[in-house]
Amino acid sequence: MNKIEHIGIAVANLADSLLIYEKLFGEPAYKHEQIASEGVNTAFFRNGPNKIELLEATNPASPIAKFIAKKGEGMHHIAFEVNDIVTEIARLKSEGFIILNETPKKGADNKLVAFLHPKSTNGVLIELCQEIR
Amino acid sequence: MNKIEHIGIAVANLADSLLIYEKLFGEPAYKHEQIASEGVNTAFFRNGPNKIELLEATNPASPIAKFIAKKGEGMHHIAFEVNDIVTEIARLKSEGFIILNETPKKGADNKLVAFLHPKSTNGVLIELCQEIR
Repeated sequence: MNKIEHIGIAVANLADSLLIYEKLFGEPAYKHEQIASEGVNTAFFRNGPNKIELLEATNPASPIAKFIAKKGEGMHHIAFEVNDIVTEIARLKSEGFIILNETPKKGADNKLVAFLHPKSTNGVLIELCQEIR
Repeated sequence: MNKIEHIGIAVANLADSLLIYEKLFGEPAYKHEQIASEGVNTAFFRNGPNKIELLEATNPASPIAKFIAKKGEGMHHIAFEVNDIVTEIARLKSEGFIILNETPKKGADNKLVAFLHPKSTNGVLIELCQEIR
């Protein structure tokens, strides 16, 4: 794992939150992307080597809608950048972590992604992500 | 704001969580520190330019004990590195953010820190931190 690639934040209303995070970082989001398969609208802010991803649900069945209903708005996941996601999934599985998708899937921001179940990581939803070249 | 300095994760039992995060990162924590004024035991892991801070309560009145009682274990705060915390507090206050301590205080890992109230940042507890030179 090379660094925190991004932190995902679940928000109820993306348009409202964009105004807040523009003020926080002093600059606008550099990317907006809808991921229909996950039921989310996203926006990304840069912060040096890291990014912040805001996530808004596009329908009530979205994981983000369920998260907000259960826990309220706030930090949703940490994504770590890896060079070789297949090798890293195998290593973490052998260490006893529960991998939610053992086959990496296409995520936002041109990445292959896999998630670790929060029950194996003290309640933290961890994403591994590898840039698609 | 230069980068994500660290992510704080609230854990129920630091000894147990150290074993988990050692496996995740493939190396042990590089620092352990107790902050009596905050009622926490902490441990820090490096991840490239970023850090992960595990936080365990040392007493029931600790903010970490209250957080876990309300929300369960998991991500507690995002800390952003700043060069001049006094200037950054003034800027964010003028933008309408609620600053929990307008005078920076001494935090873990040799930092001056200040916090923004989660109700002004979509439920995210944000820490500003400046290295003490």
